[in-house]
Amino acid sequence: MGVEGVRLVEEALRSGCRIEAVLLSETGERHRERLAPWIDKPEMGFPVFRTTDRLFEGIADTEHPQGVALLVEPRKVELDDLFETPRGACSPLVVVLAGVQDPGNVGTILRTATAFGATAGVTSATGQSGTASPFSPKALRASAGAALHLPIVAGMPLGILLTQLKLKGIHTVASCVHEEGKEVKGVMLPWEVDWCQPVALLVGNEGAGLPEEVVHAADARIHIPMATEIESLNAAAAAAVLFYEAFRQRKRKVASGE
Amino acid sequence: MGVEGVRLVEEALRSGCRIEAVLLSETGERHRERLAPWIDKPEMGFPVFRTTDRLFEGIADTEHPQGVALLVEPRKVELDDLFETPRGACSPLVVVLAGVQDPGNVGTILRTATAFGATAGVTSATGQSGTASPFSPKALRASAGAALHLPIVAGMPLGILLTQLKLKGIHTVASCVHEEGKEVKGVMLPWEVDWCQPVALLVGNEGAGLPEEVVHAADARIHIPMATEIESLNAAAAAAVLFYEAFRQRKRKVASGE
Repeated sequence: MGVEGVRLVEEALRSGCRIEAVLLSETGERHRERLAPWIDKPEMGFPVFRTTDRLFEGIADTEHPQGVALLVEPRKVELDDLFETPRGACSPLVVVLAGVQDPGNVGTILRTATAFGATAGVTSATGQSGTASPFSPKALRASAGAALHLPIVAGMPLGILLTQLKLKGIHTVASCVHEEGKEVKGVMLPWEVDWCQPVALLVGNEGAGLPEEVVHAADARIHIPMATEIESLNAAAAAAVLFYEAFRQRKRKVASGE
Repeated sequence: MGVEGVRLVEEALRSGCRIEAVLLSETGERHRERLAPWIDKPEMGFPVFRTTDRLFEGIADTEHPQGVALLVEPRKVELDDLFETPRGACSPLVVVLAGVQDPGNVGTILRTATAFGATAGVTSATGQSGTASPFSPKALRASAGAALHLPIVAGMPLGILLTQLKLKGIHTVASCVHEEGKEVKGVMLPWEVDWCQPVALLVGNEGAGLPEEVVHAADARIHIPMATEIESLNAAAAAAVLFYEAFRQRKRKVASGE
């Protein structure tokens, strides 16, 4: 995938992902010193190409490119990696994006989830509940590089995923941010869910929410209560709130030494 | 202020704010039935103007206008209104935007705050820590109409506001979402703050955060903990998390009958 801008490029170089090539334009040269610890070592084993500003602008995705970009191989993530408990976490906390269409929302949700200790991410396969690619330039920028660190399986058929999660004993929680949530039986409040167990949080489409069959197949349904009937949260704000709640509970558990 | 689009126009008509005029284009006529309960009553006392689609497009702020707009007088809010406890709330919960520059963020934060029971809003005066107008078309759209319901004082000098909050016994909490927060003494975690007391939450600039003197003048400083050093939250996600925490505590207090 392509990564652009000096901050994201630095993130990518730090991440330990396999770098295929670095691209520096004439203007980009002024960032060379900052990137020198990585790109000026021949043992790193990737080429550094120089381009003209004009050529760079032609391939850049941003309007005012900084002249620094690279190609990086996304982490090789197997389905089984999703069920691992990384060091420092008490159990898996997987974010499942099922139908999130805006690349900016995909990136923001991955960023927030990572900040609050998510251990892996999955995006649903294209089709009715397809999710925008987490590796597109726009999603990467909105994720502030989270996609470089978080293990992500992209384009997974939802049915297979739900079966696998069930087999591995990971509790699936459907986020019902929409009015419909109120009519679904057995909806829990965010703080009623036990987030310290292995959990996968399912986040749906910005407008329509999760497909009905996914809501019903999940082990639990969650609804964020509001002070007024009039207001609602956007998809990214709702995800922020739920991952915060998970983090709060997990942190308290670690602090109390349970 | 101008309000555009059938959903927001309906919100405005329901809100009880004083309507100055309604504008319907040829295309907009198809929404007339939905708005009839308000606009087809002569006793409502405001004119309904018809325009051509072309004229409407010329004055519309959106790219694909729905042909429905209105002019509404923002609620007349006095400074003292900020310190009131509305029915249903246990005490004032004021959102103070000090330096939030993006109208979309201003709207999103007001929307989230309202959803989680904020009782009033204030935006700082223009200048170093000026905040985008909450009544601009872009902010109104992002707020999903929250600015029509929440009492808001716009363009307030911060020094005067902080003095008034202190005099009225409202606890001021500075949100330190940035690295700097860690170096400030006496920083609390979101769940360590007592959100059931009268509180004003101060939210700063997207990049630079709150002005240093505001952080120090506040009664408390709050930092949202993260799982990793790499990630951070954007301004709107951080505000969502803090207002959720306030709502969670206030709801629990009401439920326990304290």
